[in-house]
Amino acid sequence: MTDDFARRHIGPSDADGLKMLKTIGFNDFESMVKSTVPANILTDKSLAMDPAMTESEAVAYLKNMLSSNVVNKSFIGQGYYDTITPNVILRNMLENPGWYTAYTPYQAEISQGRLEMLLNFQTLVSDLTGFPMSCASLLDESTAAAEAMQMSFALKGKKGKKNKFFASEDLHPQTIGLLQTRSEAIGIELIIGKHSECPADDGTFCGAIVQYPNTYGAIESDGESYESFSERLHEGGALLIAATDLMALSKLKSPADLGADIAVGSAQRFGVPMGFGGPHAGFLSTSDSYSRKMPGRIIGVTIDSEGKPCLRMAMQTREQHIRRDKATSNICTAQALLANMAAAYAIYHGPEGVSKIAGRIHALARVAHREIGAAGFKVSTADFFDTFTVEVNDSSATAASAAAAGFNVRIVDSTTVGISMGEGITREDLAGLLTSGFGIASPDLACGDQLTEVAADRARSGEILTHPIFHQHRSESQMLRYLKKLENKDLALNHSMISLGSCTMKLNATAEMIPVTWDEVANVHPFAPHDQVQGYHAMIKDLNKDLCEITGFAAVSAQPNSGATGEYAGLLAIKNYLASKGEGHRKICLIPKSAHGTNPASATMAGMKVVVVDNDDEGNCDMADLKKKIEKHGENLACFMITYPSTFGVFEEAIVEICNRIHDAGGQVYMDGANMNAQVGLTSPGAIGADVCHLNLHKTFCIPHGGGGPGVGSIGVASHLAPFLPGHSVDPEASGDLCGNTEPGICVPKTTGAIAGAPFGSAAILPISYLYIKMMGADGLREATEYAILNANYMADRLDGAFDILYRGKNGQCAHEFIIDLRPLKASTGVSEEDVAKRLQDYGFHSPTMSWPVAGTLMVEPTESEDLAELNRFCDAMLAIRAEIEDVGSGKVKLEDSPLTNSPHTIDQLLMDDWKFDYSKNTAAFPAPWVRTNKFWPTCGRVDNVYGDRNLICTCPPLSVYEEDETNEIA
Amino acid sequence: MTDDFARRHIGPSDADGLKMLKTIGFNDFESMVKSTVPANILTDKSLAMDPAMTESEAVAYLKNMLSSNVVNKSFIGQGYYDTITPNVILRNMLENPGWYTAYTPYQAEISQGRLEMLLNFQTLVSDLTGFPMSCASLLDESTAAAEAMQMSFALKGKKGKKNKFFASEDLHPQTIGLLQTRSEAIGIELIIGKHSECPADDGTFCGAIVQYPNTYGAIESDGESYESFSERLHEGGALLIAATDLMALSKLKSPADLGADIAVGSAQRFGVPMGFGGPHAGFLSTSDSYSRKMPGRIIGVTIDSEGKPCLRMAMQTREQHIRRDKATSNICTAQALLANMAAAYAIYHGPEGVSKIAGRIHALARVAHREIGAAGFKVSTADFFDTFTVEVNDSSATAASAAAAGFNVRIVDSTTVGISMGEGITREDLAGLLTSGFGIASPDLACGDQLTEVAADRARSGEILTHPIFHQHRSESQMLRYLKKLENKDLALNHSMISLGSCTMKLNATAEMIPVTWDEVANVHPFAPHDQVQGYHAMIKDLNKDLCEITGFAAVSAQPNSGATGEYAGLLAIKNYLASKGEGHRKICLIPKSAHGTNPASATMAGMKVVVVDNDDEGNCDMADLKKKIEKHGENLACFMITYPSTFGVFEEAIVEICNRIHDAGGQVYMDGANMNAQVGLTSPGAIGADVCHLNLHKTFCIPHGGGGPGVGSIGVASHLAPFLPGHSVDPEASGDLCGNTEPGICVPKTTGAIAGAPFGSAAILPISYLYIKMMGADGLREATEYAILNANYMADRLDGAFDILYRGKNGQCAHEFIIDLRPLKASTGVSEEDVAKRLQDYGFHSPTMSWPVAGTLMVEPTESEDLAELNRFCDAMLAIRAEIEDVGSGKVKLEDSPLTNSPHTIDQLLMDDWKFDYSKNTAAFPAPWVRTNKFWPTCGRVDNVYGDRNLICTCPPLSVYEEDETNEIA
Ligand SMILES: Cc1ncc(COP(=O)(O)O)c(C=O)c1O
Ligand SMILES: Cc1ncc(COP(=O)(O)O)c(C=O)c1O
Ligand SMILES: O=C([O-])O
Repeated sequence: MTDDFARRHIGPSDADGLKMLKTIGFNDFESMVKSTVPANILTDKSLAMDPAMTESEAVAYLKNMLSSNVVNKSFIGQGYYDTITPNVILRNMLENPGWYTAYTPYQAEISQGRLEMLLNFQTLVSDLTGFPMSCASLLDESTAAAEAMQMSFALKGKKGKKNKFFASEDLHPQTIGLLQTRSEAIGIELIIGKHSECPADDGTFCGAIVQYPNTYGAIESDGESYESFSERLHEGGALLIAATDLMALSKLKSPADLGADIAVGSAQRFGVPMGFGGPHAGFLSTSDSYSRKMPGRIIGVTIDSEGKPCLRMAMQTREQHIRRDKATSNICTAQALLANMAAAYAIYHGPEGVSKIAGRIHALARVAHREIGAAGFKVSTADFFDTFTVEVNDSSATAASAAAAGFNVRIVDSTTVGISMGEGITREDLAGLLTSGFGIASPDLACGDQLTEVAADRARSGEILTHPIFHQHRSESQMLRYLKKLENKDLALNHSMISLGSCTMKLNATAEMIPVTWDEVANVHPFAPHDQVQGYHAMIKDLNKDLCEITGFAAVSAQPNSGATGEYAGLLAIKNYLASKGEGHRKICLIPKSAHGTNPASATMAGMKVVVVDNDDEGNCDMADLKKKIEKHGENLACFMITYPSTFGVFEEAIVEICNRIHDAGGQVYMDGANMNAQVGLTSPGAIGADVCHLNLHKTFCIPHGGGGPGVGSIGVASHLAPFLPGHSVDPEASGDLCGNTEPGICVPKTTGAIAGAPFGSAAILPISYLYIKMMGADGLREATEYAILNANYMADRLDGAFDILYRGKNGQCAHEFIIDLRPLKASTGVSEEDVAKRLQDYGFHSPTMSWPVAGTLMVEPTESEDLAELNRFCDAMLAIRAEIEDVGSGKVKLEDSPLTNSPHTIDQLLMDDWKFDYSKNTAAFPAPWVRTNKFWPTCGRVDNVYGDRNLICTCPPLSVYEEDETNEIA
Repeated sequence: MTDDFARRHIGPSDADGLKMLKTIGFNDFESMVKSTVPANILTDKSLAMDPAMTESEAVAYLKNMLSSNVVNKSFIGQGYYDTITPNVILRNMLENPGWYTAYTPYQAEISQGRLEMLLNFQTLVSDLTGFPMSCASLLDESTAAAEAMQMSFALKGKKGKKNKFFASEDLHPQTIGLLQTRSEAIGIELIIGKHSECPADDGTFCGAIVQYPNTYGAIESDGESYESFSERLHEGGALLIAATDLMALSKLKSPADLGADIAVGSAQRFGVPMGFGGPHAGFLSTSDSYSRKMPGRIIGVTIDSEGKPCLRMAMQTREQHIRRDKATSNICTAQALLANMAAAYAIYHGPEGVSKIAGRIHALARVAHREIGAAGFKVSTADFFDTFTVEVNDSSATAASAAAAGFNVRIVDSTTVGISMGEGITREDLAGLLTSGFGIASPDLACGDQLTEVAADRARSGEILTHPIFHQHRSESQMLRYLKKLENKDLALNHSMISLGSCTMKLNATAEMIPVTWDEVANVHPFAPHDQVQGYHAMIKDLNKDLCEITGFAAVSAQPNSGATGEYAGLLAIKNYLASKGEGHRKICLIPKSAHGTNPASATMAGMKVVVVDNDDEGNCDMADLKKKIEKHGENLACFMITYPSTFGVFEEAIVEICNRIHDAGGQVYMDGANMNAQVGLTSPGAIGADVCHLNLHKTFCIPHGGGGPGVGSIGVASHLAPFLPGHSVDPEASGDLCGNTEPGICVPKTTGAIAGAPFGSAAILPISYLYIKMMGADGLREATEYAILNANYMADRLDGAFDILYRGKNGQCAHEFIIDLRPLKASTGVSEEDVAKRLQDYGFHSPTMSWPVAGTLMVEPTESEDLAELNRFCDAMLAIRAEIEDVGSGKVKLEDSPLTNSPHTIDQLLMDDWKFDYSKNTAAFPAPWVRTNKFWPTCGRVDNVYGDRNLICTCPPLSVYEEDETNEIA
């Protein structure tokens, strides 16, 4: 076959690669690599992998593998529901690179499209939960519950005194599992039981969580109304969290009305496929007073340089990249793409559509309840929305006979099954279930209108989805145009390179994306019986095996659904390993100053104490300081967290020595694998001496960034840590022999220690990384690493002289990324790194990573996927900007009159009658030749972050001020 | 299920519909319809159809139906080859509304993206065939051959004297079939035989066609070299046409080098799926001297109002909409989307990629030839590119045993099979074929490098694909960005309404598009055995049945792959029916003056003589003139062609009388169904009294326009015409009982009379119309018609007064479209209809149909899919333009200083330092509030058509002048 992939994935041609090598002083890749990667970690062995497949071969191979999945209709519920993704959203968001290749909207001026849709998401959540503040978004429902627990502890708790947290036994079991993991690690005492029996007002509780409706379907759990429970909690100075369901809330009283303080849940059933557990957007909303303790990203309204309203991410000062070990949470990459899909679903259906869907779901459930009850089965209370339970002789037998007919029910216990309705259930499905599962030969599906409404005392009173945005796009043409309008505001990889250091914005190839929306991938429930998910298991096992080979580790878990969650899971593995050896007292986690903010935040969440290690002048780990800290903490040293190559983009020479020193002191080495793109095929965490490492599959392994998620943070571990990989209460096998190691017993199935709601996290996007690896093969993967290093060094070479390039390895090479130091120029001219970042927008580029890991710098990571012409364009832009800085430096142009200061330039500004600046409009908008034929327009002027944080508005209404008049009035 | 479709397809909400009805003076749809549609044709019966399915139900239903297709690997060849659509092209062109919902690029300023890609297509064809002039594009290879025959007759022929045309017996049989149909109709004497035996130089031939390589695989047919044959033809004053294959031409001498004058073929195997026969782009190229006789659309380079190079459709004066019965051909809608895909494929692979693919195909064929020969079979000559034949005992048995193993071969005759290679054939496929078809237990697939090259005396000498465009986009990121860059230059339905009168640019719903790229639809060979295509047959039969019900006819054929081809097929049915009754002398075809240009062009092609009938002052058929013409032509009257509602957008009251008069005179009534969108569910061609009608499925039935095609022109006929539906030499069943009528024998399978290369034309896009009908159901279809009429009347009402609305029905209503007469305003102000059309671009709209059917007017057809807000925006734009015209009329603004005259306005113009105009830049670019939040920028100033036609350039090179410098040089 001739559709081989590596040449499509790697940007430069062979000939260009050679030219570039020569430019930076090498004759071949071997000499470049030898000069860059320390000899004591460089491998000369090829990765042992399947030979590279072409695109069509690989897609066919995976299709065949996944065809052993059985796609039954799911009545399982338990947080994951059959839903119908509107086709217009499927094709134009989920399958559209304009949406899925975008980055987190840090550069607000070229991200107003997805910022608007994320604000819509927040508005949706706020509307249905009744709380004014919502974030966008969290990793899943269980994570959201754990975050809320942590939030209530932060707001109301006291270490050791007021550290109890109550969890209803009627929560989804996977949520209880995650609360157990998370509470244990940070000293919260978790009490699980009946809420009516909880001494909520005794002053020892910081919070409590109930499920509304609960996991068995009851709208409220028995014994005491949630309102009364909330009152008792409030008396005791504790908060009530409601884990809830947006679909149910379209019919039921809002959590705010019930007296809850925080609502959490999943937006999955708003049009996001189940995907064997993820990715889906978790949500969390609360009142204004608690907003500053909210986890995750919050989109807010602010103004731009012209005083016009616009959007940006608000209150970043709460986040880990600023607050580090004191952050509200470690959540970084979340689920932006899926939050956007859920918002689009709500917009497309609007209040009447959502209400109709919810009404139909409710009616289906009531019909099933009636018919099963009439057939003589004992059914649970009628006070439900979409779920109820049935007593049977043998739940496995019931489940098996329904499954054989194509329908899955939930096995609650040996004599109870659960039945849950979703949007996609047809009348035929329902009839089939009743017949196959309950022997009802010809069920009566008759259903009057009244069956669509919940009981009056449960019912919501007001209107839902009242904002105009939920009323404007009801036809497919309208929806399509709205999606397109937003897409066109955002600069994504389909326009130009996004050279974000540490983020590895490489090609997200179409072939890799294709399986994500296959039926066998998208429409599988995470708790479907194992015999229905053999295709998924085979893929996960094979992927983990390849990742073992790539990392040099013994076992891998795919459960973490973000890099930061991977860190958390890895640190827990270390902690539990140490405890298993009787060294549970080891709690000190050494972290270099330069580390990514999620590192200390995750360590804190894992109940470790962070001690910072200095960097030396070359940006390396300060060995003297390290030795001192090791010595000081000796017996209490748990681990050292290190990113490799360093966050400064350098292959530190001392890495092996560092690992040895930590090990000698009885500690473990955690490697942050964010920079794996510089390692694959040349070295590995295992070779270097690390014990555990997380991989950002959304960086090195091609999962697209989705405008801020999804992601997968698979962790790899050495064999001694394999037994401590995340478990899962519902599916212990998640930590079992799918871990990629075929040695029997090395990976043990377990019911404890889950770190995500679903056993395999964001399973539906694993095919992306799987195909990438299969299509690249060992040679392709190594070449990708070589080109990633070459591209970075070529750019550093071109920019050197004009700019200060910070930190290089001992032979003068950077790894796969490099840092441009703008501080000297700022000192001499006043031009800031932000000016450069915003001016780059005028040149058609997304800024590199700004002020991280070093304030006042830009960090550039081109990746292997960028071709020489694109690299040159970017360098040309930077050099042109350098000349603009020089104009300020030389006094030719005043700082306030520089196009740098006033960037980015919008069409609106350019067309204002009074052009305020000395430079020409062409200089403003078309500063380079390529811009003229392919201009990307920022849609607002420079965003005012301070104003927005001072005037926090995180739902839609004020947006109307800059919307056109969309009224449907007859003119 | 709650995902019902009709409310998504129809733009206005129920409430808006009611408001709009009130505005135009009705209380309900019934009264509006009664006031609009003549009582004697209005039906009160609901269409008898399946109940409407929701989107998910319909997609699942069709999936299930099509699952009975068997998707074997195809070695059949014969013009259709296994190909691999690069995934980046699949997702970002074929599945992307930005490409597929665009219209034919008549408005060049907002179409530069697809114009560029079409020019790339022409450049590709020119490069490989060796001829400087190429069109973009034709309907399929067989049509292209027939067009070339017609062209050579036009250039070199003489009626009755020099009217012979030679066709090699080694052409693909479907091409011979089409040549037979087409030659017969226009008095060309077709001679089929061995070219070496053709008396080519005897002066009686206008042209000849050979296949290169021929249908059995030989590079040239035996007996005489094509060069020598060409010399003999030229001596006789005739032209040589080579039917050829672009893939083979990447290795073989070009047709131009062989001495041919015209090359034709299909670009299918450049990445366009076989799709059971279509749609694919046919091509035709020739030398400069013959360019003005070329059929189809030609893209050319010209300059804009600023003197900058840009693109537009050239030489439209040759086309049917100008030349009518004297046009070069009747081709209107062609295959733009597929031509664009083929061009993208060539760009992505480049010369080295195409050559590698071709080399591999050749090597596979040589290995197969070697192994089958070695196994003792008699194989055809080794002088082939990708195809050879094998003598076997029983070809059906060989084919059956290969088919059982998953491989299809061609059955040439009872003891010969053909084997052809395509890009997607794997080594395993080849081994499987050799084993299952030829009993070769363990075939030797060894293949040295030399096997990839054709024999030296056949080989091409120079480089292929030399233009830089074929060298710039080799990585997926590059390709993705190029496709996006072009897409963003074009205004399509994903931006705003395209209210093109007579074109019915309604919603092309995503659900409808989804099946097009299913394996079961895309990867089926048109000549696969019937037992493998039962899914396709079931769908076609059911679709035709529904279309029978909708049209009131007895039978339908889906073979015509454009509206104009439908006309041709319908007229042939009439002609053959008359002949069968011994009335072959009836040759007069009456056509109203107002008819679409394809009508007279098709009639001429069908060998009829066109006689024009006048229109009266109300735009109706002039009854007096009609009577006169009927009387005059009496015995010779074949038929009357009429569009209904009329091309003026009016339900003519006299229609029944007209039909009766024609019938009374012994003629047949051909109805042009372009305006079916005003009939469905309210009346029908059958009810009105027509005998035959073509439906543009790409108008009324939702197939997207694809930037100028594909299309389907299904024809429906009354029962007496059913035996005369198109046949097919390779698949007689095409005219058999799949015609939608279950009465046995009414539709007769036949081997004659094909009008397209494939039995079911553009079969792969039939699912679009099929799903539309299934999702709308009887009520939805009728409502769509009602809203189409309502939307048009609402707009006419809003614009009336400000503009003259031409022609209305007797109660003052228009049908589903209406004409705005700009002639009075032009007379009084000098502002032209073109000024209005171009100024609309500044307001974010595509112009309505310009100067057709009446010069100096715009014809507006909103369709039912546009919502009230969008209709109002368009009306607001027109009213604002009216005020701008008034400014000129009142003398306030000079014509040359009006934004009308200088429209459209580009960013380049706005940013020029010397703004030349009195009005503001904001007036130029943001003349309405909605434009500010969602501006669409024309990418060039007003295009100069005259300049371009005078300086005809139809391949890429000069384009470089406005490309940025894309060189990959190290700076
Ligand atoms: C070095 C490093 N570590 C950890 C992370 C966190 O990964 P995630 O955003 O997937 O949680 C990042 C993300 O950018 C990173 O750059
Ligand atoms: C009235 C009428 N007839 C015939 C046609 C020809 O159809 P096609 O372009 O599919 O060949 C058209 C196309 O717009 C038309 O408007
Ligand atoms: O191209 C058309 O005339 O519709």
